[in-house]
Amino acid sequence: MPKSLPLEEAQQAILNRITPLTSEVIPSMEAVGRILAVDLTSPHDLPPYRQAAMDGYAISVRDNQGKFIIKNNLAAGEVPDFTLQPGEGAGVLTGGHVPQGTTLVIRQEDAHRAENFITFNEMPANKNIREQGEDFQSGEVIARKGSIINPGLIAILTAYGLRHIEAIRRPRVAVLSLGSEIIPLEQKPLPGQVWNSNGYLLSSLINLQGGSAKVLVSRSSPENELSSLLEEADMVLTIGGTANGENDRCRELLSEAGVQPIFFGYQVKPGGHTCAGSKNGKPVIMLSGNPMACFVGYCLLAKPALCALQGLSPKMKRFPALATSPFLKKGGPRRFLLGYALCSPGGWRVAVLPAQKSSMRRSLADCNCLIDLPAGHPPVQPEDPVDIIPLGE
Amino acid sequence: MPKSLPLEEAQQAILNRITPLTSEVIPSMEAVGRILAVDLTSPHDLPPYRQAAMDGYAISVRDNQGKFIIKNNLAAGEVPDFTLQPGEGAGVLTGGHVPQGTTLVIRQEDAHRAENFITFNEMPANKNIREQGEDFQSGEVIARKGSIINPGLIAILTAYGLRHIEAIRRPRVAVLSLGSEIIPLEQKPLPGQVWNSNGYLLSSLINLQGGSAKVLVSRSSPENELSSLLEEADMVLTIGGTANGENDRCRELLSEAGVQPIFFGYQVKPGGHTCAGSKNGKPVIMLSGNPMACFVGYCLLAKPALCALQGLSPKMKRFPALATSPFLKKGGPRRFLLGYALCSPGGWRVAVLPAQKSSMRRSLADCNCLIDLPAGHPPVQPEDPVDIIPLGE
Repeated sequence: MPKSLPLEEAQQAILNRITPLTSEVIPSMEAVGRILAVDLTSPHDLPPYRQAAMDGYAISVRDNQGKFIIKNNLAAGEVPDFTLQPGEGAGVLTGGHVPQGTTLVIRQEDAHRAENFITFNEMPANKNIREQGEDFQSGEVIARKGSIINPGLIAILTAYGLRHIEAIRRPRVAVLSLGSEIIPLEQKPLPGQVWNSNGYLLSSLINLQGGSAKVLVSRSSPENELSSLLEEADMVLTIGGTANGENDRCRELLSEAGVQPIFFGYQVKPGGHTCAGSKNGKPVIMLSGNPMACFVGYCLLAKPALCALQGLSPKMKRFPALATSPFLKKGGPRRFLLGYALCSPGGWRVAVLPAQKSSMRRSLADCNCLIDLPAGHPPVQPEDPVDIIPLGE
Repeated sequence: MPKSLPLEEAQQAILNRITPLTSEVIPSMEAVGRILAVDLTSPHDLPPYRQAAMDGYAISVRDNQGKFIIKNNLAAGEVPDFTLQPGEGAGVLTGGHVPQGTTLVIRQEDAHRAENFITFNEMPANKNIREQGEDFQSGEVIARKGSIINPGLIAILTAYGLRHIEAIRRPRVAVLSLGSEIIPLEQKPLPGQVWNSNGYLLSSLINLQGGSAKVLVSRSSPENELSSLLEEADMVLTIGGTANGENDRCRELLSEAGVQPIFFGYQVKPGGHTCAGSKNGKPVIMLSGNPMACFVGYCLLAKPALCALQGLSPKMKRFPALATSPFLKKGGPRRFLLGYALCSPGGWRVAVLPAQKSSMRRSLADCNCLIDLPAGHPPVQPEDPVDIIPLGE
């Protein structure tokens, strides 16, 4: 029977059962934050032709002389149908085609025009020309499969006129709160009822991290609810409500919903009683109902799974840091604290946030990293070295 | 007549003319990424009552004895209507009310139950109780005006059942491309026409940074277009197309649209010919049509303005870093390079990205900071100290 696992084994056991999602074609303009599903190659040279980098005069240089006959003034977008001979020039605009035979472009402000010729004082240091393909060459990889599409990549995609791209489908994640006292935000609480705050915490995290979350509160038969959510979702997270005084309710629920258990508990504080299973390659992660434990369990187990579903590396980045505030507890299992880290001239420095009780929410809004303390750790004092796991991208 | 300004003066001159936007009431569940318009205070203690932190037994301790009569087993959500006397206990669930008179909670797994009493081996180190108000006290400030609403804050808001919050209105930003050769993404280009890649770059940045962007391509009379955009938008960015061989077109356009000029050019490379004006407290920033110059101008001038419109600090954070790759040009005006920075054990390290020509897009997707080189700078060699401005949040 599956039992409590060390963190890395628990993570790996979930990841081993995940198949990355398929892709879909979406409009480029809706793609910010989505994941590229294929390597994207340059369909043609960029710039596609030799361009003026400045408004001015394209000239064909002869013997370093400084006087050129202007044959033509090219309008914006005009494609020249003539070739410059040495000693000739043509008015050009930034981004416009330069004529065949152009050696360099004299900036508008450096040229003196008189009737149909120009003169200038000295040969410019720059050619003021954008060579064909200098940004990207035809066939070159523009962006790799697995890249997160950002505004810079949008600029590149649209420079090629790419109206659609192939992106990984957004993972559908169902978040099911199991506690019988939990109610949705729209409902007015009876005595003893509480709003589904953990559900909204998780759905906000999921939506920010590329998923599409659906939040539910269990009403009558969690095994049927779980079972039916596993039909439509790519991953299900449950929250709280399983212990109910006997730890076996978790095993029972998975079994009744036809979910193969992966582990019951992992060797981490807070939220060590977190469980996981899978059905048809879809992970089910059963998180604690304690807000901080729910958040930490999400970061350590669900977020890597969400990455893997999207074809991203699930590996959590880890950095050495110096603590700037104390944490006085010691010993016990491996423990994760909520931290706020900053890069300083001496590297990462991290404040242990004030509220570290697993039932508290106070520090959730300020947390930008987890602090990873090994099992049996001593108290943390300011300037002590600790390991951090940043939670941003 | 306004002229070329140093960067900080140019920024300040725009900011001086900005009035922060008003607020609106929005559903909490749509608030991630929005800006809180007011200080948010705790409407009541959280937790609102004294709760069990574990499933187990609430007991009222007498003389350190280890045997307690169980009066009752509280169900999920049940509110106890009795008081524990010393020597008495009651079954409780995590998050449930503990009865009046409770000293501490014995965890389920540490208690031995026999008929209507429990025994246990040793007094627990923790009380296993969540005290009323230990997370937030009634009236305490939960989050300050100007906070960006993140999932952690959503968890806090929804724990109070707050279905709506007051957020700063999203700034409406119009992005108008002036070049006559520029076409929208939907259109098939004629020879010499190019897609509005810079417009899509800016709109993606604006939307990510809290604004709501509208992208347009100038068709016939930019002065009328600009004028009418200033009616509906909170800020207008124009791109390229003004120089057209005579620098005064920019002045003319602002004047015809009734926009008061702020400056013509700022002492920065790339994009030094950027202009700005304002009309009725609405900034107009006229960015270069060169992609990198357009991006840098956005980061240095438009992004601070977008922050100020949202009541956020427009100040760009700046950190010392060591370069990891060279940049061989030297001298000239203050220059901004596209960089990729990482926090290492010795502090920030920054790679100068490969494509630094203002007409190029290659490095836009990899850029996470600007490198700020002072006027007349020497070439940058690996391990040289430079200043960086991170572009993420």
